[in-house]
Amino acid sequence: MRDHRISPATVERAFAQLASEGLIEPKPGQGTFVRQTQKIVAEEADFSWQSVALGSARGDGGSMGALLALPPSDSLVLSMGYLPPDLQATGLLTNALRQAAARPELWDRLSMEGLEPLRAWFAREIGNGSVFAPHEVMICAGGQAAIASTLRALVPHGRPILVEAPTYTGAISVARTAGLELVPVAMDENGVRPDLLADAFRQTGARVFYCQPAFSNPSGVVLSSERRAAVLDIAQQARAFIVEDDWARDLALVGAAPPPLAAEDRHGHVVYIRSLAKSAAPGLRVAAIMARGAALARLKAVRGSDDFSVSGPLQAAAVSIRSAPAWKRHLNMARAVLIERRDTLVAALRTELGDRASFRVPVGGMHLWVRLPDHISDIGITEELARQRVIVSPGQAWFPADPPGSFLRLTFGASPAALREGANRLGIAVRQQV
Amino acid sequence: MRDHRISPATVERAFAQLASEGLIEPKPGQGTFVRQTQKIVAEEADFSWQSVALGSARGDGGSMGALLALPPSDSLVLSMGYLPPDLQATGLLTNALRQAAARPELWDRLSMEGLEPLRAWFAREIGNGSVFAPHEVMICAGGQAAIASTLRALVPHGRPILVEAPTYTGAISVARTAGLELVPVAMDENGVRPDLLADAFRQTGARVFYCQPAFSNPSGVVLSSERRAAVLDIAQQARAFIVEDDWARDLALVGAAPPPLAAEDRHGHVVYIRSLAKSAAPGLRVAAIMARGAALARLKAVRGSDDFSVSGPLQAAAVSIRSAPAWKRHLNMARAVLIERRDTLVAALRTELGDRASFRVPVGGMHLWVRLPDHISDIGITEELARQRVIVSPGQAWFPADPPGSFLRLTFGASPAALREGANRLGIAVRQQV
Repeated sequence: MRDHRISPATVERAFAQLASEGLIEPKPGQGTFVRQTQKIVAEEADFSWQSVALGSARGDGGSMGALLALPPSDSLVLSMGYLPPDLQATGLLTNALRQAAARPELWDRLSMEGLEPLRAWFAREIGNGSVFAPHEVMICAGGQAAIASTLRALVPHGRPILVEAPTYTGAISVARTAGLELVPVAMDENGVRPDLLADAFRQTGARVFYCQPAFSNPSGVVLSSERRAAVLDIAQQARAFIVEDDWARDLALVGAAPPPLAAEDRHGHVVYIRSLAKSAAPGLRVAAIMARGAALARLKAVRGSDDFSVSGPLQAAAVSIRSAPAWKRHLNMARAVLIERRDTLVAALRTELGDRASFRVPVGGMHLWVRLPDHISDIGITEELARQRVIVSPGQAWFPADPPGSFLRLTFGASPAALREGANRLGIAVRQQV
Repeated sequence: MRDHRISPATVERAFAQLASEGLIEPKPGQGTFVRQTQKIVAEEADFSWQSVALGSARGDGGSMGALLALPPSDSLVLSMGYLPPDLQATGLLTNALRQAAARPELWDRLSMEGLEPLRAWFAREIGNGSVFAPHEVMICAGGQAAIASTLRALVPHGRPILVEAPTYTGAISVARTAGLELVPVAMDENGVRPDLLADAFRQTGARVFYCQPAFSNPSGVVLSSERRAAVLDIAQQARAFIVEDDWARDLALVGAAPPPLAAEDRHGHVVYIRSLAKSAAPGLRVAAIMARGAALARLKAVRGSDDFSVSGPLQAAAVSIRSAPAWKRHLNMARAVLIERRDTLVAALRTELGDRASFRVPVGGMHLWVRLPDHISDIGITEELARQRVIVSPGQAWFPADPPGSFLRLTFGASPAALREGANRLGIAVRQQV
């Protein structure tokens, strides 16, 4: 305390931290001692046999690792797939989880499928409860887990899966890791092209199409209402499943979100995925998979071996934030700020890049999908910006096969100053390459 | 209130519950109304196309579903793989999670691999930190998720995996679902048979052996110290991985748990899995995978597509319960009670079944592995007992291939009265079949 001129409370916290990290060891009645731990000198260890045992890589080439890596704390982050800290529902979540933590029954073994009120809430969100019954809802530990379980359950190893191009990199990663054959189907400004989708089903014999009809990540495209009917029709003709990943339902920025495909699905073609983390906070690892018929049974059989159930207190917290009156205020606030920040980024990009970049202004979600001149490498510009502590996502990771051009995904959740500064650095970097 | 003679608070709670379930709808200034929701009449729906689209089943035949199904609330449960509610660390968990819930940074995006103090804690637990460094630890949403990610990452589709016979049914389920070829290796009272293990590696070309060297589930067998060295040696000769699932390290009932294989592994053969739910409560969905070398990279690449990260508050709660002074008291209490209950069940079985059943008294874990006379069907007796609301687990689900006899797994976590009553019903059922 004397040496560092700090309070006893600070010293106490520091000691508690050091003890919890195992660096010091309090011995009652004797004092506190520095702990002796040392990693075995690795010079004798030989891990080289592992590469033969592991065989060829079946991962995604590191794209998820890059996406999930935490940026340096002093960087301008235009790459995060979640609301930034200032827009997260932290207060609501804290209260909800504090209450749930104190209910002992939530710590006990729960049904594998999830808490009944949470399943009922998810079911009610689609068509006012007219599509899925609560028993057709399975709770999972977040949207990525839901996508992983669903794709693995529905598509056998080595078989094809159709996806939008571009599409969510996390779904690409799941498909690659599970040994599925990714078949990209191009989109235009109205969503996936029905003629190409029908053709892809015919040509590949695929039985599953993964898509994000509302505010597709990364492109922000919304499947038009005529095409919604066409896509359902094509799946019906192909006797195939549509995995509808409705990731941004809460983040419609202009009017209401379009109705999900699931709401118009009569014959069990749509397996529907919805996550709560996107509009609350990344730490709320709660999502749902909804399905009917034999697909429900198949999914349940696979889910059990994937990870049992989701922690009870988290599930209960999810129920209570969604029914809290403050939830709507949170959502309205988050949407209003996202609109402002989207517009800030759009204006800054127009100023800095002019006609060197093209993009559509998204009506939902949190990403701007920017096309650069073809001669500029998305990877090169991403690396150049990273050296300046501006973090953006290169477009390549969002294409299941060959990218048709050079794209960047820019997330507009960051502060207006960060967005303007990021756009400015991007502009300089692009102009230097022309 | 008048009709039911209940307090205003009760009415208020009931209304809140109904509103949260979406059955009533409060309209400010107008009153509260019954909500109109109705599931579309399903008569026109035709799901029959799904069975062709889904193809042949790749699940586990329902064994996980049976294991995870919640028993009727009035039943005597001798089948649960977790501490019963009266032995769970609920008070500790409540306090820890309530504190963690209030730290906003824990709701934000975290590193995919987990919170640093939690990773450091897991690393320290093995050989006092001399085997794995914190960066070689990955946090997962529970032991099942850890097993699933690990087996899928290390064994390609269609390739063999060696397992103890009997072994944990959750690992069997993962292997079946992932399309792996399960190769059973028999155990005796000292653990897996080294001669058979070496033979299995030679014959199948397998590069992975999944095992539970300490208090194997369901048999309770401990791999002897001579065999620990032999098993490591065999893996080294076969240039293969050992996936060590150390599920019951906290639940040694006689003396200390044996050192894990990982502690003696020089050359990165052991991929080590440890869960916290078993000794705390089922709702603490936190576990770790530890690996070194190329295996670590492979596992990281796969983990990201499986489910991103584990909820921050849960991870922080796990750190703080393990460093709380009350944790040791909890563990000592739980162990003492488990010993009592194990002895109660053992005595009751000896009384009720005499030499009609054989078993070893386990020195760790929470299961008794009972062999019945061969002519008695484990499934038949399980169903007969279930009709009497006594829930036990049939042995078949724990065998990766053909069961060599008729077994039951009886969990001794239940109350002494339930254990005695369960043993009594089992005795009657067995005697009726002789």
